[in-house]
Amino acid sequence: MTRHAQDNAGDRPVSDATLRDLAGYNIRRASNAVQADLVRTLAPFELRMITYSALVLIVDNPGLRQTQLAEALAIERSNLVVVIDDLERRELIGRNPMPTDRRAYALTATLAGTRLCRKATRAVRAHEARILSLLSEEERQVLASTLRRIEQAANDEG
Amino acid sequence: MTRHAQDNAGDRPVSDATLRDLAGYNIRRASNAVQADLVRTLAPFELRMITYSALVLIVDNPGLRQTQLAEALAIERSNLVVVIDDLERRELIGRNPMPTDRRAYALTATLAGTRLCRKATRAVRAHEARILSLLSEEERQVLASTLRRIEQAANDEG
Repeated sequence: MTRHAQDNAGDRPVSDATLRDLAGYNIRRASNAVQADLVRTLAPFELRMITYSALVLIVDNPGLRQTQLAEALAIERSNLVVVIDDLERRELIGRNPMPTDRRAYALTATLAGTRLCRKATRAVRAHEARILSLLSEEERQVLASTLRRIEQAANDEG
Repeated sequence: MTRHAQDNAGDRPVSDATLRDLAGYNIRRASNAVQADLVRTLAPFELRMITYSALVLIVDNPGLRQTQLAEALAIERSNLVVVIDDLERRELIGRNPMPTDRRAYALTATLAGTRLCRKATRAVRAHEARILSLLSEEERQVLASTLRRIEQAANDEG
């Protein structure tokens, strides 16, 4: 069977060694794969990743201001608006003007919000246990500390 | 100074311990931070991350088919179309019908594409050297292998 030269690569394994030598590429690929499983994990609770993260922080930090929440999640305040609206519409959180600054709002989870957060966190931890099952406790800690140092170094470049 | 109870959290450090205990959250945060610096690194070459990744794979695998490229990057074929169009319009790659299957295209980098890819990769490696400067060679290898195992485990859940 005669094949054109440019056709040859068609059946060879694709080499992605250049990309796989980049830590950023490996982090991104792992992040995307984990995210896909996490999205499935959160779907039964009708929570998106960012909505879940926001709810956790509000439950853990009653009275949190929106500016603090945006900063803690490293997202733009404008991107947070739809998340807060969603949580409030579902009565998972309450938003109260702060006595000292009427333009600021203090966010507090409702009982329903706290319960949903607890259930979702159990599911997220089970998802994590599955995807980390091959790693030892030490490897998990090394991973967390390595990623934090990379995050910090990358932020320092900004 | 009297302050309302719900106001108290306003000045306390925000606790994100629940989220930081999740490997997925740390991976995502590191990924976002690295991505922000990478976007700045690629901007002078007028390359987006996905466009750069595609160009690297085409340079390294002359004659690559679009289906193979989509698979190697783990993205939908439909999302690849705009990337390929962009690279072709800028004459960084050529797209030729394959003799054995007229519906498939073999992708090959032009000389200009190969040169741009080489320059961009030098800049990306410098960006990586900056954000990884605090990690030893061993830590980098452990990170890569740990992330690969997580990526694989997460994909297996899908």
